[in-house]
Amino acid sequence: MLAAEDASLGAKPEAMGQMAPKEPNYTYIARTVRQWILHGEYSAGDKLPSEEAMCKEFAVSRMTVRQALAELVNAGLIYRVKGIGAFVSTGQLERDLNSITGFHEEFQNLGLNPESRVLVSERRLPTRYEQLRLGLTKYQLVRFVRRIRYLTDVPMGVQSLTVPIHVVPSIENIDLETTSFYRHLRDVGVPLERADQNISAVVDAEVAALIDIPTDIPYLRVERTSFVRGNLAAELLVSSFRADKYSYHVSLTGEDR
Amino acid sequence: MLAAEDASLGAKPEAMGQMAPKEPNYTYIARTVRQWILHGEYSAGDKLPSEEAMCKEFAVSRMTVRQALAELVNAGLIYRVKGIGAFVSTGQLERDLNSITGFHEEFQNLGLNPESRVLVSERRLPTRYEQLRLGLTKYQLVRFVRRIRYLTDVPMGVQSLTVPIHVVPSIENIDLETTSFYRHLRDVGVPLERADQNISAVVDAEVAALIDIPTDIPYLRVERTSFVRGNLAAELLVSSFRADKYSYHVSLTGEDR
Repeated sequence: MLAAEDASLGAKPEAMGQMAPKEPNYTYIARTVRQWILHGEYSAGDKLPSEEAMCKEFAVSRMTVRQALAELVNAGLIYRVKGIGAFVSTGQLERDLNSITGFHEEFQNLGLNPESRVLVSERRLPTRYEQLRLGLTKYQLVRFVRRIRYLTDVPMGVQSLTVPIHVVPSIENIDLETTSFYRHLRDVGVPLERADQNISAVVDAEVAALIDIPTDIPYLRVERTSFVRGNLAAELLVSSFRADKYSYHVSLTGEDR
Repeated sequence: MLAAEDASLGAKPEAMGQMAPKEPNYTYIARTVRQWILHGEYSAGDKLPSEEAMCKEFAVSRMTVRQALAELVNAGLIYRVKGIGAFVSTGQLERDLNSITGFHEEFQNLGLNPESRVLVSERRLPTRYEQLRLGLTKYQLVRFVRRIRYLTDVPMGVQSLTVPIHVVPSIENIDLETTSFYRHLRDVGVPLERADQNISAVVDAEVAALIDIPTDIPYLRVERTSFVRGNLAAELLVSSFRADKYSYHVSLTGEDR
């Protein structure tokens, strides 16, 4: 732990200079702590370096460190114990299920460098299940894209996307290794308006093998069907994300809506 | 499969007479199919009996059977393939995470006979984690109740409930084996107004041992903190439900809230 801590604390200021010269110091610190947790340098229950140590290593004021820690407390990543210090909560990044955002957009906003590797990209006839979920006849072609998703080089899981080509014809012209599908939908004027999501948990040896992690780690499996104007299904997205690094957040108001 | 099918189809009409004389036939049929799936008599991918067979066995019209099947399709439990029949989707009951309902209320509405067994019920000081989540000082007493939850005698999981006694003093007088906590809150005039939920997946040998199922089945773990008027935390509820029988549903409208 100490060696990792020293290395990280020591290495980051230069990286900051290279990558994001105008980023505020506190978001840079928050992002660095997220990366420590993501890479397992700090795990659930571990105590973070003291405020003093962080001030010194990042060469910032106490107020800046506190601002960064407050952001991480709000995100549920850490908690503070008065007079003792800050601790890692669960070691999981929390993804917001209340808004229809994509993996890329959500984690880019957090500075976690989301990346994708396309395993499969094919134009084909829909499976029976895809027909049912997307309301397709068996001859309506779909584009199917399977991607591994990474955050700062850590493989987080696998997503399988099925898009009816007649609903989003431009899907055939974009590279989903570098382009956000949801941003693309907004760019072409067909933003998502509604989504249904089913959340389950699985142990999936196939996914584990794809991203090279132990097979006994469970996955959160989210199946999302999203609709554009006119109640037309534009995607079936099946996400399997490793539950040791990932969790979901849903907030609600009002009882018995 | 056939033996179980015969037994269920044969046995139910009498049970219907005993239990719910005024229940419409189609909800009775839907409930019976839910029980088949819950008890594993029909698993993911299995074909249900034909409409003809169900008409005959339940002694109802084709329209009534179709109404029951439509309800199950809407709940995501089954899907129909034209000209072939109805199939079990995932074998999981889907719980709605969009409303702050309790286990008891939600499944009672579906006629699945929710029951509880209290494992622990104690008045004690809050743990450090409970203090953080519920905004308590270390001397504010809580009631802690741990329950196994059943549906039609099938153990579904374990729930641990922590309630600050000064927020809901009447928690000391109710029996959570027979009373719904959420209904009680409404009865005493402090309904829940807001909840934050974190959803993760775990493999939990302790829970598996408690409800006596294989240790390699993952659990959906939902941690819910609920608030009453004045932003006062009234409960910390940690639910661990077996993912082979259980999933969650979240629907959304509008992108980028």
